[in-house]
Order: sequence, then structure tokens, then C-alpha cells
Amino acid sequence: MTDFTATKAMFDLPKGVLYLDGNSLGPLPSAAVARVGEMMAAEWGQMLITGWNKAGWMALPTDLGDRIGRLIGAEPGQVVMGDTLSIKVYQAVASALELIPGRKVVLSDNGNFPTDLYMVDGLLRSLGAGYELRIVDPEAVEGAITEEVAVLMLTEVDYRTGRKHDMKALTAKAHAKGALTVWDLAHSAGALQVDLAGCGADFAVGCTYKYLNGGPGAPAFIYVAPRHADNVRPALSGWLGHEAPFAFDLDYRPGSGIERMRVGTPPVIQLTALAAAMDVWDMADMTDVRAKSVELTELFIAEVEAACPELELASPRDPNLRGSQVSFRFADGYAAMQALIARGVIGDFRAPDIMRFGFTPLYIDEGDVRAAVDILADVMNNRLWDRNEYKVRARVT
Amino acid sequence: MTDFTATKAMFDLPKGVLYLDGNSLGPLPSAAVARVGEMMAAEWGQMLITGWNKAGWMALPTDLGDRIGRLIGAEPGQVVMGDTLSIKVYQAVASALELIPGRKVVLSDNGNFPTDLYMVDGLLRSLGAGYELRIVDPEAVEGAITEEVAVLMLTEVDYRTGRKHDMKALTAKAHAKGALTVWDLAHSAGALQVDLAGCGADFAVGCTYKYLNGGPGAPAFIYVAPRHADNVRPALSGWLGHEAPFAFDLDYRPGSGIERMRVGTPPVIQLTALAAAMDVWDMADMTDVRAKSVELTELFIAEVEAACPELELASPRDPNLRGSQVSFRFADGYAAMQALIARGVIGDFRAPDIMRFGFTPLYIDEGDVRAAVDILADVMNNRLWDRNEYKVRARVT
Repeated sequence: MTDFTATKAMFDLPKGVLYLDGNSLGPLPSAAVARVGEMMAAEWGQMLITGWNKAGWMALPTDLGDRIGRLIGAEPGQVVMGDTLSIKVYQAVASALELIPGRKVVLSDNGNFPTDLYMVDGLLRSLGAGYELRIVDPEAVEGAITEEVAVLMLTEVDYRTGRKHDMKALTAKAHAKGALTVWDLAHSAGALQVDLAGCGADFAVGCTYKYLNGGPGAPAFIYVAPRHADNVRPALSGWLGHEAPFAFDLDYRPGSGIERMRVGTPPVIQLTALAAAMDVWDMADMTDVRAKSVELTELFIAEVEAACPELELASPRDPNLRGSQVSFRFADGYAAMQALIARGVIGDFRAPDIMRFGFTPLYIDEGDVRAAVDILADVMNNRLWDRNEYKVRARVT
Repeated sequence: MTDFTATKAMFDLPKGVLYLDGNSLGPLPSAAVARVGEMMAAEWGQMLITGWNKAGWMALPTDLGDRIGRLIGAEPGQVVMGDTLSIKVYQAVASALELIPGRKVVLSDNGNFPTDLYMVDGLLRSLGAGYELRIVDPEAVEGAITEEVAVLMLTEVDYRTGRKHDMKALTAKAHAKGALTVWDLAHSAGALQVDLAGCGADFAVGCTYKYLNGGPGAPAFIYVAPRHADNVRPALSGWLGHEAPFAFDLDYRPGSGIERMRVGTPPVIQLTALAAAMDVWDMADMTDVRAKSVELTELFIAEVEAACPELELASPRDPNLRGSQVSFRFADGYAAMQALIARGVIGDFRAPDIMRFGFTPLYIDEGDVRAAVDILADVMNNRLWDRNEYKVRARVT
């Protein structure tokens, strides 16, 4: 059994704050500051260039990939870290398209996070005439998987509502129609059980600064199913994906398996912070995390609906159909969220009217949920949001 | 006048080490550890998601881009940080190609760093039939700039020998033939005076972990000439390059000017380390740095040639034709470099026979150069390299 009291003790959350925004940026694992300081002083400072081998920097992208792999149903050697999620989406879709010559449609939905759509739009423009990014409603995805589709690219959990796609069924349908799949796990990794191998997923990508707590701008990851890993020729053919990077050959020869999805020099400082975050994850079992997440989201929904009649549930009511977040619609949601944040409950807002709350069992417990609902009820029922100071919009992340 | 005693005091180099590999990985600026620790504890830890605005994280890529811009002849608002150099090469060449419809040749040379060639190879394969990466000898570049060429992509300073291209003349020739230029400044930024505006360069990219001392895996930068900045439609169209990233529109609309070259979420921890490194650079004038660099390289060449007759100069003898490194050829160069490193003089080796030494006036002075030559002479003249322990090859970065 995962000891959530122990994992909670591994984070230094600010006093007076109830943090329900770990689905946007996970909090600081207490050990990360010393860990990064040590890496900088003892490794970078003392080993200098030799740190790449002596301190194992060069192996960090695969070492950490393996540790994340455990949480998403991947075996060691199938996940590698690097770049940003946007870049990894581009890399995955470009790779998938090359495996399906003759087909030119990438199918996605309008619940996908916009950068995934933007990146594929840019990719398809480069590829030229005939390529099409087809965007349908989330509910229409299954029916839109036809034999025209080369790649089905979806984010498993909708960033706005937490609605969850059926990865297994949609992957099976895609395969039945001869298409490949690219799954974005931004709101899945560390949020719920993912079984990439069991679902037969072809490619998956994700970020590490949300549920995984890797810190602001932590690198992304990419998974390639072993049946594809040695067949893919990456469009982003960088030197660290080369079979022999330090031979400095003029011609690109892709490295073995997942190694070829590496591109440039890995961000060692960010990866070190992520390593500290993964130490917390090493204490957790995703079955326990998911069970606890469902408990917390069910409790939150029940309590909010009882206390705040003006808020309308925007997330699926069935926990099997949602991720680890709960969203409510409220016309003045922006101001209400600002008022809530001023009272120490941090969630976030997504236009036009979504108040979004993330539940992260590693450091959020039932007491936190009840305390957050009490404050939310106070904000709503005493119309604390109806003040000008909360209505001025700043850029919200 | 730049006070090099003061800048040297801002680095904690290990005792007993003479570090002549700052052209590969710059050393740790002393202030960086506390700076990063403070960012992690006080910003990430305490501000959590609100750090994006409150702590100015979102502005770091342009703030730091402006500070680097000062060193390379760019005005504020023309340089932005992000991704790796490999990705930035791809982004720059893809952008340049879109500005020259109808032409399909990218011209480069075999002295370019391999990842630049690999990335363009991957890009051109995506673009399809007719595109060609044409690679010539460095000396043949000028003659190969014809009206077929869309983009001239060169690394200004050769990573092996330090040979320097004439950026101004080659850019002028390219423009005369209707081509655009992409300059890789990996071995230029912080190494010598670069005048992008004065040379009329179209695009430039570079890394920040070499002469700029941003740390292992520090992010890259990209420069776009203002005459192109609002015309480029980036192939890597990520959400942070969108006109309104937080509107979460389904359609990509490029942001204003250099902002559109942003892609994904910036690596805030790495950028914070880089900010500490740029504090040292803020004390330096590139004219002084270059003058001192020339003094150091001239001294090194003269002393080595006097003391080590077996070493053959591989760098141009004229300092105006080389960057801030000096390379010597020696058949057993790998073993000699290992023997040298064992004695505390850190340079590096590039196949097949190049011993490479970087000179970085911010923290290397004449006394260091003389001390390094004494040890090198001892290694060479007493054949200390001729031991089996130095001949076993490990992966060298």
C-alpha cells in the first residue's frame, strides 16, 4: 500500500495554501533543492565536462524514461526524456506518418490541448499538398476513424473538463482501420493508470511538470512501441539520436530503438529536479494513487454540489470517465477563481467559464478537500467574487 | 575596460584544474547554485503556478535573449531562448526555406557540426522531392553559392579547428544570389565579436552551455532579422509562439516578431542558471574579451610550438581567421589528451587526431596558459601518453 502520509511529507507546500493546481504545475519536492544544488556544485562545478560520463548525465534521459515508464505501462528502454511536449508531439506524429505511407489525414478532437493541434498543423504544412488535420468533437472521434486516417492523435484526458477517452477501444478501432495512434498523456501520467502496452498504443508523449512534479519547464517524454522503435526514422534527427553521436559522421544513422528519439543535449539541471520528483513516485503504486484520486474527486463533487448550487459540474460524473481533475462551470468563474486564490485555495480557470481543480493524492488528502470546499462555499455563497479586484484579467497559466 | 580578475573570481574552478574546455561546457558561475536554489524554494516552492507571472518566468526567454543579443549584435526583441540548438537549427532553416519559395537547396560545409546537417537532412526529407542538402568543403562554400541555393547554413567557427568563416562576405554573397543565411553561433557567442545586424544575417542560432556558461543542457537561442520576423511562419508552431497562448484557440496565429519562435514551456530552472551566468557577461565587453582571447591563443600557439615539436597546428595561424580555440594534430591525440586530463589540464579530443583547447578570458589568464603548456610539454616530451590506461576510449563529449 502506498503511504500517502509519507509522500505528503516529501513536499513543502506553503502554509495556508490548499493546492489544487498540481494538474498545471506540480509543487516542489522538498529534496529537489538540495539535489539540484549538489548536482550543480559537485558535478557541474567539480567534474566539469567529465560529468557527462562520470556523473551519468548522458544516461539521465533513458534512466528517467524508464522510471516514468513504470507509471504508464511501458517496459524499460521504451521511453526517453527530452525537449518539450510540443516538440515531442511533432516528433511522434511525423514518425507515425512515415510508417503509413499513402495516408494523409491526422485525426484529432477539439478537446485536445491547442499546442498539439498547432504543432501538427505546422508539420502538415511542411509535408505539403493533401495532408489534413481533421478535428472533430470528442464524442465523434470513434466514428471518424476511417481508412483515410493515418494517425489518430488524442490527449487521453481533456485539459478543460477531465473527460477521459477510452484509449484501449480507440486504439483498437484505429488499428482495425490501419491507422496508428499518438496519445498525449499530459493529464494522465501520474494521474491515473495508463497501460500503453495493454492498449497496444503506438506512440505516446507527455510532460513531467504536472502530476509528476518535475518543476517549471521540466522536459517531456516520448514512448515508442517496441514493434515500431527500430523502424521509425525520426524527422527531428538530432545528434544524440545518432547511432554514434561522438563519431561526428556527416551522415545520420538512427540509434537503436528509443535512443533515436533523442535530439539535442539534455537539460541536466531540469532532469535532476525531475529525478528528485521521481523518488517520491518510486514510493507510489498507481493503483493506490488512482483509487485515492477517485475518492478525492468523488468527495469534492459531492461536497461542492451540496454547498454551491450555482456551480455546474463540467466533468463526467462517472469517475471511470474522467481523469484526476474536477471542473465546474460558472459564468463569473474567472473572478471566482481569483477570489478563491486570494483565500489560499489554488485552482485555475480556463475560458470561457471553467473553474478547474486538480487532485493529487501524493500531497492532497481528504482534510484538504473538505477545507477547500468550505472556502469555495464561502466565496460563492457570500459573493466574494463580485469585487472589481478579482475581475481584472491577468495572464493565467 | 573589462576587469578579468573580477570575472575570474565569479567562478569556482576546482583546485588543481586548468580548464581549457569551456568551448564544450562552460564552468559553474559561483552565484548560480544559490540563485537556482532560491528560484526553486522561493518561486516554485512558494508561488507555485503563480510563479509564471509573479516571478517573471514567462518573460525569461525574451529577457535572456536580449542579454545574449548584446553580445552578438542584435537589438532587444530579436533573440529568444528555448529548446536545444538542434531544434533551433531545424526551426531556422524551415523558416528560411518558406521565405524563398521555388528554391530547394540548402548549402552547408563538412566543417559544420554534424547535428546541424542531420537536422536539415530530416527536415528536407519531410519537405519531399527535390530538396537537397549540398555539403562542400569549407573553402568551397563561397564558390558554391549559386542562384539554386535557398539557404546558406553555416557554423561560423569550426568546432574542430576553430577556423572562422567570413560572415559578412558570405552573407553578402548569399544575398547577391537571392539566398538567405542561417548562422550557427555555437562557437561564436561569447567567444568573439559577432555583428549580426552589421553582417545582414537573416537567422542565427546558438547554444549557451559553451562560452556563455549556462550549464549542461542550457537552452539554445534563435535570432531573426527584424525584416523577416513578422513574415516567418514557424514550422514548429507551438502554443507559446501563438499570438494569444492562453486563449486556447484551435487555430494557430503566430505571435508578434520573435515571440513566434517560442515553442513549448520554457525550462525555468535551466534559464535561472543561465541568468546567473549572464550576470558575469554583463560585466564584460566583447571587444575586450576578443582582444584577450587573441592574446591567450597567440601565447598558447607560440609556447606549444616552442615546447612540443610533435604537435602540428590545426587551427589557422592568423588570429583573424580563427575563433577562441586552438587545435593541434597528433596521431596519438586521444591518449595524449587523456594523459593531460589526468594531470589536471582539461581540453578535449575530436577524431581522428585533434587535440582541442578553448580559451575563455572570463576565467582563464596568461598564468593558466603558461602552466597548461608546461604540463602539456611534460606529457609530450616524456611520452606520458604512451601508457595503455590512456588509450582505452571512453565516450568523450
